[in-house]
Amino acid sequence: MLPYKTLITIDREARQPVYQQIANRFASLIREGVLKPGLLLPGSRVLALQLGLHRKTIVAAYDELVSQDWATAIPRKGMMVATNLPDIKPRSFQAPVSPYGYGPTFSFNSIPFVVTSRHDLAPAGQLIINDGFADMREAPLEAWLKESRALVRRPRYHQRLTYGSAMGSPHLRLQLARYLTHTRGLTLSTDNLMTTRGAQMAIYLTAALILKKGDYVIVGSPNYFYADLCFEQLGARLLLVPVDADGIDVEAVGQLCRTHKVKMLYVIPHHHHPTTVTLSAERRMRLLDIIRTHRLAVLEDDYDYDYHYSSAPILPLAAGDHGGNVIYIGSFTKLLGLSIRSGFLVAPAPFLDEMARLRKLMDLQGDNLSDETLAALLGDGTIDRHLKKSNKLYHERRDHLSQLLQSRLGDRVQFTEPTGGMATWLTFHRRYPLAQVAVKAASMGLSMSNGEQYGYGTKPLNAIRFGFASLNNRELTKAVGILEKILKSE
Amino acid sequence: MLPYKTLITIDREARQPVYQQIANRFASLIREGVLKPGLLLPGSRVLALQLGLHRKTIVAAYDELVSQDWATAIPRKGMMVATNLPDIKPRSFQAPVSPYGYGPTFSFNSIPFVVTSRHDLAPAGQLIINDGFADMREAPLEAWLKESRALVRRPRYHQRLTYGSAMGSPHLRLQLARYLTHTRGLTLSTDNLMTTRGAQMAIYLTAALILKKGDYVIVGSPNYFYADLCFEQLGARLLLVPVDADGIDVEAVGQLCRTHKVKMLYVIPHHHHPTTVTLSAERRMRLLDIIRTHRLAVLEDDYDYDYHYSSAPILPLAAGDHGGNVIYIGSFTKLLGLSIRSGFLVAPAPFLDEMARLRKLMDLQGDNLSDETLAALLGDGTIDRHLKKSNKLYHERRDHLSQLLQSRLGDRVQFTEPTGGMATWLTFHRRYPLAQVAVKAASMGLSMSNGEQYGYGTKPLNAIRFGFASLNNRELTKAVGILEKILKSE
Repeated sequence: MLPYKTLITIDREARQPVYQQIANRFASLIREGVLKPGLLLPGSRVLALQLGLHRKTIVAAYDELVSQDWATAIPRKGMMVATNLPDIKPRSFQAPVSPYGYGPTFSFNSIPFVVTSRHDLAPAGQLIINDGFADMREAPLEAWLKESRALVRRPRYHQRLTYGSAMGSPHLRLQLARYLTHTRGLTLSTDNLMTTRGAQMAIYLTAALILKKGDYVIVGSPNYFYADLCFEQLGARLLLVPVDADGIDVEAVGQLCRTHKVKMLYVIPHHHHPTTVTLSAERRMRLLDIIRTHRLAVLEDDYDYDYHYSSAPILPLAAGDHGGNVIYIGSFTKLLGLSIRSGFLVAPAPFLDEMARLRKLMDLQGDNLSDETLAALLGDGTIDRHLKKSNKLYHERRDHLSQLLQSRLGDRVQFTEPTGGMATWLTFHRRYPLAQVAVKAASMGLSMSNGEQYGYGTKPLNAIRFGFASLNNRELTKAVGILEKILKSE
Repeated sequence: MLPYKTLITIDREARQPVYQQIANRFASLIREGVLKPGLLLPGSRVLALQLGLHRKTIVAAYDELVSQDWATAIPRKGMMVATNLPDIKPRSFQAPVSPYGYGPTFSFNSIPFVVTSRHDLAPAGQLIINDGFADMREAPLEAWLKESRALVRRPRYHQRLTYGSAMGSPHLRLQLARYLTHTRGLTLSTDNLMTTRGAQMAIYLTAALILKKGDYVIVGSPNYFYADLCFEQLGARLLLVPVDADGIDVEAVGQLCRTHKVKMLYVIPHHHHPTTVTLSAERRMRLLDIIRTHRLAVLEDDYDYDYHYSSAPILPLAAGDHGGNVIYIGSFTKLLGLSIRSGFLVAPAPFLDEMARLRKLMDLQGDNLSDETLAALLGDGTIDRHLKKSNKLYHERRDHLSQLLQSRLGDRVQFTEPTGGMATWLTFHRRYPLAQVAVKAASMGLSMSNGEQYGYGTKPLNAIRFGFASLNNRELTKAVGILEKILKSE
């Protein structure tokens, strides 16, 4: 209930009768929008008790409100604020404005901005070409919620729902250490592991801990735009290095390290975002050299390791000899969907200790229920089975998309089949500017990016990531069919 | 499966036979800890295919491993890394070190630090006096998970699990707008609302958006330590203003605004943290004056509004005439437990637009499943019913604690019964230093804070917040009994 005692103030010295003061105050509150149409007012007994008045005074006030059409008496329910208000425009000089209706009068910082596709505004059920996300229809969400339920039913578990470490649940960190050792050949202990809300938080935390204003950061060109924005927001200066078919140009990285005081390198070794290329084994070895020589901090974003089709994955830089300088991040978001934001970060313990403090200031602590649920699903093989199943499924979808793109769009587009991951990097011939293609597609029931975000900080690319994992073969055929119609009508 | 193709490298020019190269490489990987004891090695057919070798070569390599006791053949399962390794210490010069075993060689920033009670390290089932959290045994977690399950079962819902706005789900923002209007008299639209991971993220986002390095921020003394740390981490300078029985000293705030270029005020109007005092109505009116006059940015942290026992709540500053300058934050963490981190933030739309960009860089987007679940429970009255029930329960527990403290601890401690919230601010007589009391309590099965964090930035207080909501009457009696024993033995 609203705090009527503080809302309804009475002046006993005033000439106006108390019941009228109350009625007028109610009318003002209704006019101002504090009491909304349809709201049930407190019973006269309850309100009388709260205001320390006789009940008859309240009844008189309510009668006055009804007579002025501000309220209606509803049998057996009580008094309700009228739904067809007598005069929705204010009669008094007091405007019915919200203090939030206008901007603040203080100044505030501005944040770098990039237009992204707003698929969240697409009507439910619309066909969407996304950046490369999992198919939620296949995600083991039932198993997830079943496990969560089993956890909260354990009487001993309740304590863990309140008290948690900023490092994440110890149980999950143990499971993750095993998982990362078995799948990626990492040598680490649980002290080297922290769980985060998702890879994005891991990127922000790492960058905030390493960078000072004005520091140089090497990034690929093009690069994952939210990483670039994050570094810029933290005051860093970006040094751009070309990305070719073998990944980021490592010789150019070495060259920059000799000419600039470079603080950090951001690298995506598998299925680089956005172009999906993978860093070659030779370049990896050379990069490890550079890291050791220049004491370079490296943020290795391996968001997509778990999905490989045409070739075995290459071990991450983090598994090599880097002297503790590679901060390795990944996430289960690709597996469980963006809603379950379960990322992780591997780093030397002294670095993580500091990070845990920063995380507390930003987010207090992890979600223990989510952590423990993931730990259980890693432990009982659910995650492993799901990975096997979805690797097979997404492999088929990738193949189907490649075949479709070739047969239906031909030389109007250009692409190299990705060896893994969830998206194909699709470049449109410059005859077909994506800004126009995306608008036409929307009118034909297909929500897709206009490619703008992928060219952040570089030249326009006229390309998109065509996420194939979330669409079944029928949907892929339909989506490419719409693109075919658009391109052929040009 | 591990990427054996990149782990096992073969030199066909070498004099050593291939099978021996493979066996040696396996032995190294086991010694280095990459392959853990008990791990099943791939079948010889599978590995032969991966390495492009004849199966007999693999079988010979495995035989060699077995003969060296590195592996054991398990009937019908295959080859397993030995669990009692022949020589766990390395025989070669290659040390079995993890690159994460030592710190990074690059420098990184340090984060301000305050010791907090590590209740997460308490054994399961131990008695804990916490800061003031809900009783998880009473939280509607079953209803929560049931609703989540109903959501993921709706075919149309899957899209929402992937695509979300950094502002949070529109559905939840609508429910929240209603809820805040009905309970707090706020006049706002959904454009003024953003959901966050919890109140802490809302504090960090707001401060990061408003503050520049060197800016002055007024805070209470004492104050919620994670807010102080957050402002300091962002480079702000703190101006401390006393907190008395009527809340923060508003005249002192006005004075500082005249002498300093103050950018922001952080205020906790209800049940101030840590002292639990509530800002008086007079001071609130005066504060609104000051905010308008000095165009002061205000962060109103109303973390505890929903729990009132002795008196009706006073409307928040945000409901007053502040010209859009009050950023109002709250959370459902107190209701649903710390694991379900559902906070919110009310601010003018242009400010929130900027904030959504910052949130993307830190956390990408909200958790749609959690948002939609909360929206459903707000909509169907579950939250409302739970609030009614737990207000009654916690009211009883507060009364029980007050009675216990008076009768059992007497003048060894001092406290003022809080009018609401989940904790009593309990000051121990200086004869009983809390550092010692906490150590003794731990040895007697009671985990409690030593009070250090509450005095961050001010003089030591020898006081703790005694969270009464999470303990039933029997547990409260037991906890106070332990304190009684400790104080009487001094």
